[in-house]
Amino acid sequence: MEPNDGFRELGRQECLRLLATAPVGRVVHTRHALPTVLPVNFRLDDEGAVLLCTSAASELARAVDGAVVAFEADEVDPVARSGWSVVVTGPAAVVSDFDRFRRLVRDGPLSWAPSPREVFIRIAPELVTGRELVGGRSLYGLDPFF
Amino acid sequence: MEPNDGFRELGRQECLRLLATAPVGRVVHTRHALPTVLPVNFRLDDEGAVLLCTSAASELARAVDGAVVAFEADEVDPVARSGWSVVVTGPAAVVSDFDRFRRLVRDGPLSWAPSPREVFIRIAPELVTGRELVGGRSLYGLDPFF
Repeated sequence: MEPNDGFRELGRQECLRLLATAPVGRVVHTRHALPTVLPVNFRLDDEGAVLLCTSAASELARAVDGAVVAFEADEVDPVARSGWSVVVTGPAAVVSDFDRFRRLVRDGPLSWAPSPREVFIRIAPELVTGRELVGGRSLYGLDPFF
Repeated sequence: MEPNDGFRELGRQECLRLLATAPVGRVVHTRHALPTVLPVNFRLDDEGAVLLCTSAASELARAVDGAVVAFEADEVDPVARSGWSVVVTGPAAVVSDFDRFRRLVRDGPLSWAPSPREVFIRIAPELVTGRELVGGRSLYGLDPFF
């Protein structure tokens, strides 16, 4: 990130605090050898890992289990011209520990589409980076914010 | 995409029509050999290519010029529980044709942070895919939308 690009880099704790406020994030993974992006709901666990819930048979579960993925959330306020973006990068794995699975059934995220067999995916927060919008042009309607 | 995952696949024209309504999208590229995501403003050209504007010295310009990238935009309505997500995948290149550059200076996207030397990046729409939310759980506040 250049010092003159209009952004401020965020620290890990600040990133996680912002991430916890976002209702939806996006998983970046590979599909047919190309990068793709899927919006998902999520929760963070106490360690800052990203938790998702999806059908065990879903393309998402098959694609990310065992892979290093990026998870992104952002928020842009068009009126205030403020915003942030956070990316968590780390290995994703289907939660196989039964005790942890039971806890997640109780208080983890729900998948958007109910499925007879759901799994939880945990993305370990090995790398947590973020940036905050710190000023720029103001021609609302002509030039958005990043 | 599974037929039972609660989404409807969108055709190319429908994807481009939705994309044109989004104020902000996200470029997926590689940073230090890891996937990362950057929110950006953008416009579409007549061929459905995604146009971005950034500083010639930016990390984004260096990272994506000549690379195949994914560009994503989405919109989720928490109240109506409706939403869509579109991904454009294709090679990105800095616009080097001078006539095209001049036209983009006049009517292309603006970079968020003004820079003494700006470039336009064009992402060719080789693959345009999208999905629409077509129904699901309704516990607003507990389980968002994807």
